[in-house]
Amino acid sequence: MPRYALKIEYDGAPFAGWQRQAEQPSVQGAIEAALARLEPGPHTIAAAGRTDAGVHATAQVAHADLTRDWDPFRLSEALNYHLKPAPVAILAAARVDDDFHARFSALERRYLFRLIARRAPVTHDRGLVWQVLNPLDANAMRAGAAHLIGHHDFTTFRSSLCQAKSPVKTLDEIRIEEIPLPQGREYRFHLRARSFLHNQVRSIVGTLERVGAGSWAPEDVRAALDARDRAACGPVCPPQGLYLCGVGYAQDPFA
Amino acid sequence: MPRYALKIEYDGAPFAGWQRQAEQPSVQGAIEAALARLEPGPHTIAAAGRTDAGVHATAQVAHADLTRDWDPFRLSEALNYHLKPAPVAILAAARVDDDFHARFSALERRYLFRLIARRAPVTHDRGLVWQVLNPLDANAMRAGAAHLIGHHDFTTFRSSLCQAKSPVKTLDEIRIEEIPLPQGREYRFHLRARSFLHNQVRSIVGTLERVGAGSWAPEDVRAALDARDRAACGPVCPPQGLYLCGVGYAQDPFA
Repeated sequence: MPRYALKIEYDGAPFAGWQRQAEQPSVQGAIEAALARLEPGPHTIAAAGRTDAGVHATAQVAHADLTRDWDPFRLSEALNYHLKPAPVAILAAARVDDDFHARFSALERRYLFRLIARRAPVTHDRGLVWQVLNPLDANAMRAGAAHLIGHHDFTTFRSSLCQAKSPVKTLDEIRIEEIPLPQGREYRFHLRARSFLHNQVRSIVGTLERVGAGSWAPEDVRAALDARDRAACGPVCPPQGLYLCGVGYAQDPFA
Repeated sequence: MPRYALKIEYDGAPFAGWQRQAEQPSVQGAIEAALARLEPGPHTIAAAGRTDAGVHATAQVAHADLTRDWDPFRLSEALNYHLKPAPVAILAAARVDDDFHARFSALERRYLFRLIARRAPVTHDRGLVWQVLNPLDANAMRAGAAHLIGHHDFTTFRSSLCQAKSPVKTLDEIRIEEIPLPQGREYRFHLRARSFLHNQVRSIVGTLERVGAGSWAPEDVRAALDARDRAACGPVCPPQGLYLCGVGYAQDPFA
């Protein structure tokens, strides 16, 4: 059976998350249903990152095994046709080797978190950002984030539901952009690692927001990390600002 | 009665337009209802631009007459509280002179039109842009747009419902930005004039899109303008890419 990699964009708002669930809309379920319109029968696809309810993607990667030899462009067009009106788009499809696995072959995941600080409620960005009311100190957040870069036990920044075998991960980058808006400011957190623990990005951004607001000192992030204790984490921030925005492989299947 | 100017942002999707209508949700109606929560009784506000159904604003300006002396910041906060959950936000309020009129004192209106060209359906930008499938020639659109700059009879680019006394207007600027996206391209049309005719921006952008797609030559825009005939216009483009993004006054009430 020929295997295809799919690059997928979605608005997480109407979904209970990536993962297929009985009785609940999921991104995986929507794509598997579209695949079944092309080739009848059950389909099971695997994704690089199983995003939570409300979390978005601009470049999720999944793989699917099909029976027919599909031209990749026609496959993406046909899937997009059957996905309507769900806010899920196949940006690209590519034929890959049988040993390519969207999740296990991935060497890097990149996430973006969008945080807007302004008084008036957001309108066009509703459901696409986390809003706070007061401006944040970006340099303090950067100083706090610096403590998290590298190889650490991230028990503090890990959901109690996390199923990863080890809490030890290497965080390669946290870059924080500050963008002035006509009203208020946007902070974009760019995080990069081989893999992340469950709720790790939201735990980190929620903690750094406390630093930006002045409630925590940057060094308190170090102390929280060293505590290796979930109770030492700052508040986990809401899902709607989070985007899975890239997955790296030894060879880019879409190149 | 003290008069206040309001700077207003809204997502036009759920509204039948700016203007109050019986039985239909409108932006004006939503704000007047919020004002009635602050000061009981009927309120009638006037706006610089009466946007159509589905059209957005990032900086609409309206004025309201109130009985009490409101601190402008507290007024905007109180209105935002009562506007929830409608996607309408008061970005600023300012006390203005009694002879300030949001519509009749305006010297300039600025509109933005967002057009995205890509194959896969948009997800996060749904309802916020007009999507076409194929890339456009930005320089051809700029050449076509150049024919429209200046003082002209815009009968061709005017809705048959337009109530303006004269079709003669001065268009000060059409600037077209081309922004590469991870997939596809975005074209941002920035238009500026003292005032616009009904559907003028959407008529112009719809015509320029035909030029960008290669169906029209840039000079055909000149011929269409010279025809002074609604039938000579290109297809009017849909409302969801259009934003009223600024109103100019002799003195900025929010400065």
